[in-house]
Formats: sequence, C-alpha cells, structure tokens
Amino acid sequence: MTNGPPSHQARLRVRYADTDAMGVVHHANYLAYFEAGRVELLRSVGISYRDLEQRGFLAPVVEVTCRYRAPAYFDDLLLVRTRLAEARPARFAFEYDIVREADETLVAQGRSLHACLDRTTLRPVRIPEDILQRLQAP
Amino acid sequence: MTNGPPSHQARLRVRYADTDAMGVVHHANYLAYFEAGRVELLRSVGISYRDLEQRGFLAPVVEVTCRYRAPAYFDDLLLVRTRLAEARPARFAFEYDIVREADETLVAQGRSLHACLDRTTLRPVRIPEDILQRLQAP
Amino acid sequence: MTNGPPSHQARLRVRYADTDAMGVVHHANYLAYFEAGRVELLRSVGISYRDLEQRGFLAPVVEVTCRYRAPAYFDDLLLVRTRLAEARPARFAFEYDIVREADETLVAQGRSLHACLDRTTLRPVRIPEDILQRLQAP
Amino acid sequence: MTNGPPSHQARLRVRYADTDAMGVVHHANYLAYFEAGRVELLRSVGISYRDLEQRGFLAPVVEVTCRYRAPAYFDDLLLVRTRLAEARPARFAFEYDIVREADETLVAQGRSLHACLDRTTLRPVRIPEDILQRLQAP
Repeated sequence: MTNGPPSHQARLRVRYADTDAMGVVHHANYLAYFEAGRVELLRSVGISYRDLEQRGFLAPVVEVTCRYRAPAYFDDLLLVRTRLAEARPARFAFEYDIVREADETLVAQGRSLHACLDRTTLRPVRIPEDILQRLQAP
Repeated sequence: MTNGPPSHQARLRVRYADTDAMGVVHHANYLAYFEAGRVELLRSVGISYRDLEQRGFLAPVVEVTCRYRAPAYFDDLLLVRTRLAEARPARFAFEYDIVREADETLVAQGRSLHACLDRTTLRPVRIPEDILQRLQAP
Repeated sequence: MTNGPPSHQARLRVRYADTDAMGVVHHANYLAYFEAGRVELLRSVGISYRDLEQRGFLAPVVEVTCRYRAPAYFDDLLLVRTRLAEARPARFAFEYDIVREADETLVAQGRSLHACLDRTTLRPVRIPEDILQRLQAP
Repeated sequence: MTNGPPSHQARLRVRYADTDAMGVVHHANYLAYFEAGRVELLRSVGISYRDLEQRGFLAPVVEVTCRYRAPAYFDDLLLVRTRLAEARPARFAFEYDIVREADETLVAQGRSLHACLDRTTLRPVRIPEDILQRLQAP
C-alpha cells in the first residue's frame, strides 16, 4: 500500500466581511482561505505553524497563484482541499482546490510556494529535519 | 489667538476590497480608516508611530465606538477628520468624523481610546514626556 | 421555567491574516468576529441572514462598540458568545463576549445596534413579523 | 515617436491593518494594492471603473499571480506601477511592480487577468468598444 503526499480538507463559512460590491467573495480573500487550509494540513500531520514560529522559523509565501473558477457567496460553506505539492530542504509548495460544499462547484484553485527563514536574521535556512520528515513521510 | 488640541484631515480613496455585498464600505473598515487618520494626525505634530514602536512603546486601542451615518461607496474620496480628545500620561483618545469629499455627507463618526504599553512587557507605562508634550502643546 | 433572550456560542480559529505587526489580532477584525457570531445566533433561531436579504431586507450596523480586554493570537480558538440585547420593530441590538477557549480569558466585549432597511429603497422599515417573533420568543 | 501601452504609478501608504504577525504586509493585501493600481491606471486613460459597473459591466479577476520579492512594513510609502499587458475584446491583463519609494526596493510583482461580464447575466461579453479603444490607443 502506498500513500500520496499529505492532503487535508478544511471547511469554512464565508463571512459577510469577505464579500465585495459584486456580491461575491473578494478575490484577495482566497489567499487567506488557502492559508487557513495549509495551517490545517500541517496540523493534521502534527506540525503546529505557531510552534514552528516559536522555534524560530518563518515560512512566508514566496509566490502565489489563484485561478477563480466560480463565485462564492456570503454564508457558503467552502471546502479547502490542500495538498503538499513539493517539499525540499529550502522550499515547499502547496496546491489548493476550493469547492462549495452544497453543490461541489469548483470555486478557486491555487498554488503557493514557501521559503523557510530564520525568524531573527530573515535569511533562508533549511526546513528543520523533523518537519521535513513529517511532510515527506506518507 | 488660541489653538485647540491637534487635529488633522487625511484623504483616502475607498478601494473595491473595502466594500461588501451591500455595495457599501464594510463597517469594520472604518476602524482602519480611523487608524490611518490618527497616524497622520500624529505625523502632523512630529510623531511617527513607527518610531514610537521602535523606541519600545505600543499604543493599542482599548475601546472603540463607531456610528454609521451614511453609506460610502467604492471609489469615494473620504476625508478623515481626526482630533485629539484626551491626552493623559497613561491614556489618550481620538475622535473622528469621516466625510465624503464630493458632497460633504457625514459618513461615520467615532472615538478610540488608547493605552501606552511597554512593547516588551506589554505592561502599561506613561506616555514618553516628549510625545505627551507634542500632543498637548497647541 | 423561564427562558432568556436568544443567545449562541460560535467557535472560530484566528487566521494569520487576522493578526497585525503587534503580533495579535488586529482590533478591526473583532467586528467581523461579532458579525460571524450574530449570523450563527440568527441561524440558531431559524433565521438565515442570507434569506432575509433575499426577501428584500438589510440589517446594517448603525453603531458598534468594542472593548479590548486581552490580546488574542494566531491559531487561538475563540468563542464568540452572542446574545440578543434588544429587539424592537425598527431596531435591534446584540451583545458579545469573545473568550479564548484554552484559558477562558475574556478577549473582547462589544455591542452592535442594527436598523432594518428595505433593500431597494434603503429606507427604514419594520422588521418582518415572523423574524421579530423568532427573536423575541424565548 | 511611439507610445507603449498605458501605464501608471500610484502611491499608497501601508496601514497598520495591512500588516501581520511577521511584522510585514500580509501577502493577501498586495492583491488589494494591485487593484488600487489598476483603478488608477484606468482613471488615467479616462475610464472610471465605477462608471463601467454602472453601465452594466463587471471586470472580475480570473487569475492572479504575485511574487513576493522583499517585505514591506507599516508606514512604508509604496509605488504601484501598473501597465496594461493585454487588451482583447473578451479579456485583458495588467502587470504590476510594487516598489518601496524610500529605497526603490522591489517588493512584489504580479499579473492579473480579467474577463468582461454582463453585470446582470454574469455571462462574458465583449469589452465596450470605447473602453477597448482607450486601453489600446497609445
């Protein structure tokens, strides 16, 4: 039996504050939804992003892409499906599908690339070995 | 001739991201507009809030009130009129009127109360004397 | 046996996007947390705010107050305790306590006052009778 | 003499509300900065995005990419340099460089692709001819 890379499905409800004058979720908010998704994926493999920061690491977004497939609306329940797309010592990437729960409509897709930095010097460092193993181990 | 307490008028343009599905500025964003207004009032009397933080102080909001008088819309130019309402050694307050420039409609009014904290200990401290003087001197 | 007015407890996780450079939840975001809380309180008594808008009503915030009691941090689980404070034909109000689940620390308290408007004319109207009854009936 | 496609430089100040717990501008906010930049580019060639919506068109973002080059901080003055990258009857694209004014550091780069929709039907339509000409005419 083989497992793929870590993946996770988080569920969130669209807040009124997330919408814009088009009556839909403002496009910038999907980046916060992706962020919520990857925090939960990490938690599901035993990694607390808060702890990671407290150990002295930061994992900022280096590049992000989002494709908007269909609008989402206030009060929609959205599923954020996050999977690890790449995990190398100095960088890692996630991919995302956001789907409306009620009708399985694909709302948005995206990808984020991250570096690992020392929190004090803000210089790139290798991802701590225990973290890398949790990301890579199926 | 007498001067009143410091006051300032800042001008900002409503972004699409600031609106919500009612087609108007989402009510939480006025707190960010107030914040922009008081940063500019402080700058106008020679106080950089960024420098204040770098000197080791924080001035968090302890309480805020906002009354919504009329909607504001995407692309509106708004005037944020900020005045110092109170400046004591351990706390200070600002009051705000937000007015639409085009027709002088009063959009929102508010008040924020602030403490002065030591950035490291997060304990209340007296406002530095040079800052207090700039706030109080007419 | 007597029941009080409707109340509800919602649970939400602080997103990284909600924090600011003080390392805590930015104060404006509590207004979005209050909003999430009252949407869930309404749902708990059978009122969908989305349906209310689709029936032609808006319930904008007319006034809001927030008192900040203690900081909240990224990844905190927060409980938003919302209760109906007032329900009259033309206006209604909610009160909120936000508490950190892990240690029951009171983080913020607030109150919002709402009008009921006709969505087309944006003029005040009476709250629909069926809604008012759901709000008032214990 | 030849002119290139329309371009524009907008200037904005980073608000405290735009920062996150890393002490820098939260990555999602650059999408709102891009949006502010393209609204000003359009205005500079005589196109009001608000008027466009009132004429019955929407120009939602279909895809966006952002590369983060260097952090920006609270109170930084940023220059948003926007240029039209593509203008076809059914879609158009902008490219962005965001630069810190004080030291000309490149902070972020991005690209957004837009469709033109009928505001009522939400179906794709051709960009109105007068708008297309303003975008294409050097």
